[in-house]
Amino acid sequence: MRKGILKLGRDDGEGAYIAAAASVVGKCEYEGPLGKEFDLHDPTDKFGMKTWEMAESEMQRLAFNTALAKLSASEREVEAIFAGDLLNQCVGSAYGLLDFDIPYFGLYGACSTAVEGTMLASLCVSAGYFKTAAAVTSSHFCAAERQYRTPIEYGAQRSPTAQWTVTGAGAFMIRNEGEVRIAEALPGIVVEKGISDAGNMGAAMAPAAANTILRYFDLGGYSPEDFDMILTGDLGIEGGAILCELLAAEGLRIEDRYNDCGIMIYDAKKQDKHAGGSGCGCSAVVLASHLYPRLLSGELGDILLVGTGAMMSPASIQQGQAIPAVAHLIRISGRGGKG
Amino acid sequence: MRKGILKLGRDDGEGAYIAAAASVVGKCEYEGPLGKEFDLHDPTDKFGMKTWEMAESEMQRLAFNTALAKLSASEREVEAIFAGDLLNQCVGSAYGLLDFDIPYFGLYGACSTAVEGTMLASLCVSAGYFKTAAAVTSSHFCAAERQYRTPIEYGAQRSPTAQWTVTGAGAFMIRNEGEVRIAEALPGIVVEKGISDAGNMGAAMAPAAANTILRYFDLGGYSPEDFDMILTGDLGIEGGAILCELLAAEGLRIEDRYNDCGIMIYDAKKQDKHAGGSGCGCSAVVLASHLYPRLLSGELGDILLVGTGAMMSPASIQQGQAIPAVAHLIRISGRGGKG
Repeated sequence: MRKGILKLGRDDGEGAYIAAAASVVGKCEYEGPLGKEFDLHDPTDKFGMKTWEMAESEMQRLAFNTALAKLSASEREVEAIFAGDLLNQCVGSAYGLLDFDIPYFGLYGACSTAVEGTMLASLCVSAGYFKTAAAVTSSHFCAAERQYRTPIEYGAQRSPTAQWTVTGAGAFMIRNEGEVRIAEALPGIVVEKGISDAGNMGAAMAPAAANTILRYFDLGGYSPEDFDMILTGDLGIEGGAILCELLAAEGLRIEDRYNDCGIMIYDAKKQDKHAGGSGCGCSAVVLASHLYPRLLSGELGDILLVGTGAMMSPASIQQGQAIPAVAHLIRISGRGGKG
Repeated sequence: MRKGILKLGRDDGEGAYIAAAASVVGKCEYEGPLGKEFDLHDPTDKFGMKTWEMAESEMQRLAFNTALAKLSASEREVEAIFAGDLLNQCVGSAYGLLDFDIPYFGLYGACSTAVEGTMLASLCVSAGYFKTAAAVTSSHFCAAERQYRTPIEYGAQRSPTAQWTVTGAGAFMIRNEGEVRIAEALPGIVVEKGISDAGNMGAAMAPAAANTILRYFDLGGYSPEDFDMILTGDLGIEGGAILCELLAAEGLRIEDRYNDCGIMIYDAKKQDKHAGGSGCGCSAVVLASHLYPRLLSGELGDILLVGTGAMMSPASIQQGQAIPAVAHLIRISGRGGKG
């Protein structure tokens, strides 16, 4: 009964394209391997604001404005924004995008939010509801630490499997014309496999990613060779390894073209980031400033980006509950893609 | 440039209908004026669970299951769920719907989430992405009090303008055929007019509701007489009065057909609920069990339901920020409707 993979711009005519993308990051991200590719950064991580939470909102505002400038469009042309972040009640987005007089859909999908927002914006654009819609997400290390774990001033020890919340925001302008197409979408099912260690979110999210990727290859009849890259955002080093093992056990080998935005954004040897990056901003900035230009130039043809989110709260962990996770998949076809 | 009102099932062919709806509520809601209309209730507010948060999740599970039973459908027929709640990281939804093997879109729009989810599910169904999608939301008084304000055991004094978070969950099955149509949708713009008192959310949300309603009547060329009811969910007594004043100042008089789900759900004289109800569950249960049957029977023709959300967090209030609010509008056409 379930239709499975949503094919945009074939079944429904119009199609959805990333027409512009922008990224804003903090100090550690700028110092990482992709640092020079990001649009804006602030070495203080504060973006001129008095609190970490307001700094996160300011990153969203800057990312949206930069993407708008790249599109050479006015605010009035953007008919809807799909936005979300990690802060309680998603205040990073609500305050960050308040300046803009644009209809707003608030989302919560933890680290999967960048893909969730891009997917929903693309579905709505492809269906003809909007000509231009935006997807904007963010996360901030210092705001996330004091909300989920302890304020950074405490200097708490982190476990080796812990991921480092990326300080960054990404914005995407989705239009009904362009070069880089959101060709397919497969929304994720919530999966919980008994992992209750919030210091090992990669292990909690890997089964959700495996579920979505296996469904995608099964429903679509694809093989890994059909894609130049298969990416998750963000399982980190620990979760990425678990994902490859889970898929291999099902006979699907993706290692030779697999990477993870949380692994890519930091230098595992030189930067003390344990299992790698995470957060709503991580896959957003890697897609906006590293992957998107390569899709646009034709260096990358077809890629799969699987946004993974661990949807626990500090209260649910304290109450002893395991971590539910979700993984949303989009197929992005660049200039040389076949999607 | 902005297209304005999204017309479902005219521009795009298919259309979206509420094919089934269910509600689950707590003790106070059962004792209120609409009490006998709700599907399920638990006088302990605990739904057999050990924590308030888990009770909220259980309400979502029950609401979804009840709606599914009313539809005489299997879980496999539901191709996507759009869900959200008030708890940090929306854990009410993530845990509540974990049992179901269905693609999941997490939303955050505070009390506007029921309308936001119904709108997005309807847009996706009307565009042909899914034949059946669900929208599910919840809130729980005791879980919300200890998260946003103080644990109920403290017995804190409430201000007269404060709203009472409804203990309840509502679920809607949106299909491409049926009797009660989601005819039009107008997503809301985030508005902040300087109100920073979290004990007066009605005042913070009323300008957002006014913004959306004025845009709707302006874009659509409608007059209030075109609708049997114009409802908000949930401004309460204080916010509802402010909305009518704001609209009257712009020459739009809706008082004779206006009501608010937060006002309707409790008895202002007999129940000590101050400014009325609020929460993601409030408009959901009122729509599911009070409005929907009347739309189905033809007693109500066309109604407007404006979901209003106050998107602050305890942290943003402590940091002295004013409350951003959003209001999403759907036009629902019942058996006798013209929409």
